[in-house]
Amino acid sequence: MSPIHNRFLERLSQAQRDKNSIAVLGVDPQLDTAAIPGVPPGYTLARFCCEIVEACAPHVIAIKPQLAFFEARGLAGLEALREVIALARKLNLVTIADAKRGDIGSTSAAYAEAFLGDGDFGCDAVTVNPYLGSDAIMPFIAKVKAGRGLFVLVKTSNPSSGEFQDLEAAGGGRLWEKIAARVHGWGAEFARPDGFSPVGAVIGATYPEHARRARELMPQAIILVPGYGAQGASAPDSIAAARADGSGVIVNASRSLMYAYTGQVGASPGEAAAQAAASMRQALNDALLKAKG
Amino acid sequence: MSPIHNRFLERLSQAQRDKNSIAVLGVDPQLDTAAIPGVPPGYTLARFCCEIVEACAPHVIAIKPQLAFFEARGLAGLEALREVIALARKLNLVTIADAKRGDIGSTSAAYAEAFLGDGDFGCDAVTVNPYLGSDAIMPFIAKVKAGRGLFVLVKTSNPSSGEFQDLEAAGGGRLWEKIAARVHGWGAEFARPDGFSPVGAVIGATYPEHARRARELMPQAIILVPGYGAQGASAPDSIAAARADGSGVIVNASRSLMYAYTGQVGASPGEAAAQAAASMRQALNDALLKAKG
Repeated sequence: MSPIHNRFLERLSQAQRDKNSIAVLGVDPQLDTAAIPGVPPGYTLARFCCEIVEACAPHVIAIKPQLAFFEARGLAGLEALREVIALARKLNLVTIADAKRGDIGSTSAAYAEAFLGDGDFGCDAVTVNPYLGSDAIMPFIAKVKAGRGLFVLVKTSNPSSGEFQDLEAAGGGRLWEKIAARVHGWGAEFARPDGFSPVGAVIGATYPEHARRARELMPQAIILVPGYGAQGASAPDSIAAARADGSGVIVNASRSLMYAYTGQVGASPGEAAAQAAASMRQALNDALLKAKG
Repeated sequence: MSPIHNRFLERLSQAQRDKNSIAVLGVDPQLDTAAIPGVPPGYTLARFCCEIVEACAPHVIAIKPQLAFFEARGLAGLEALREVIALARKLNLVTIADAKRGDIGSTSAAYAEAFLGDGDFGCDAVTVNPYLGSDAIMPFIAKVKAGRGLFVLVKTSNPSSGEFQDLEAAGGGRLWEKIAARVHGWGAEFARPDGFSPVGAVIGATYPEHARRARELMPQAIILVPGYGAQGASAPDSIAAARADGSGVIVNASRSLMYAYTGQVGASPGEAAAQAAASMRQALNDALLKAKG
């Protein structure tokens, strides 16, 4: 068999080289609360998100729109999502739909079509939930064969993430480690000569020891690390799952980029986000350099 | 504290009494394949779904639209979903968004707003995925306090459902049983005098012994059983999680209702679905009667 050709991986590697960056922009337009303004005054949802995406494009390799924030705004929200994805494509940014979907049979195939097909919400990659087992994953794997990418939710960093994920199995090993081993299995046949597979994983950045264990269990996975910035993870913590040569990790920040303007008098959302994205890229690159020693 | 008032539970009980039914119509407009036509020739997506919903309304207590099949069709699909939900409300049908969402913090709150709020996709209840632990569930619980309902994915019936769900814990018990115990805990404070809580569970119908164990672990949960009909579960299997008095279970069928017309020459989709829904209601009621002995 000829070596696997995977457009998602190629686009991702190319962007990393071109931009010298492993930073991902999470497009998470929060709902209005006392703490966060949601959409800034004078902006529409689409204009706010698109300004941020365009401004950050030189510094980030990908965008990761969080579906929830668009769905919560109904049809108008999803129309904005469509615009954001279209803009990202035009800017040659990799797109990762943060949907965390998981279902079975023809339902799972429909989700795969929704987020990895050619329709309004089609992206280069999608996040998925593994609780239903291989059946839930296989329709997405069919899209991987067609050049798309996958990030399986393995270990999250929220306070209650241990509740089920850390369950110790009778034969040894924790639930999330069992899932990590399966992710390795699902992705093995797609590995490229550089050893990376388009079947990746989501690993929260709060506990670097989890990141290192995840890398052992999934040597071929691209690991997507959320939680940099506003959610509290430092640059060194965020890259703990990298290989010895610094490869294999991409790091997402959402609020610290989209809402950077709230801490800066006189800066537009785009200007403040671009500055924050440039700093993030630098901090991650410094951490990678230091880790390589 | 005064007894909990939960509009979702009241609407569900009222519908069960009024219609003498525990049947739920799964609105799953399949994608076109060799085996299934998707949307019948001459129909739009919305017209097809709405005809089925209207025809089945006398026989079913609720509709359960499967989000995947609408998302796969992009904005046009979601516009149809909005119409279906609006029609169901007009017909006084309970609405259950089968979304199986699960995320954390403000993202989870946005999903809760999307499916249990007052927007385009707002329903009476939603299905959720527990893999991320209590954090993922709490924003939905906040909506339960405001009268909505929840069905937590506990045990599914797909071939690979055992892969992670049946993981045996070191201290005894399987993963899905641990989750069932947590579902009981999440719902306890909302239980009504009849002992039912608006925090329910999804339990696949393939293995009746799972259903009975689920009932032991979640004595107060309304159990939503998918898979009747086309997915292979019989009426007696489907009601195995009922209490001794026959209460506490609602049963979903999707393809066997929506695509009943494909097996009947000369019947419209609505006519065939109504006939299939009436038979389903009867079969479930017969099974409940027999189980009560």
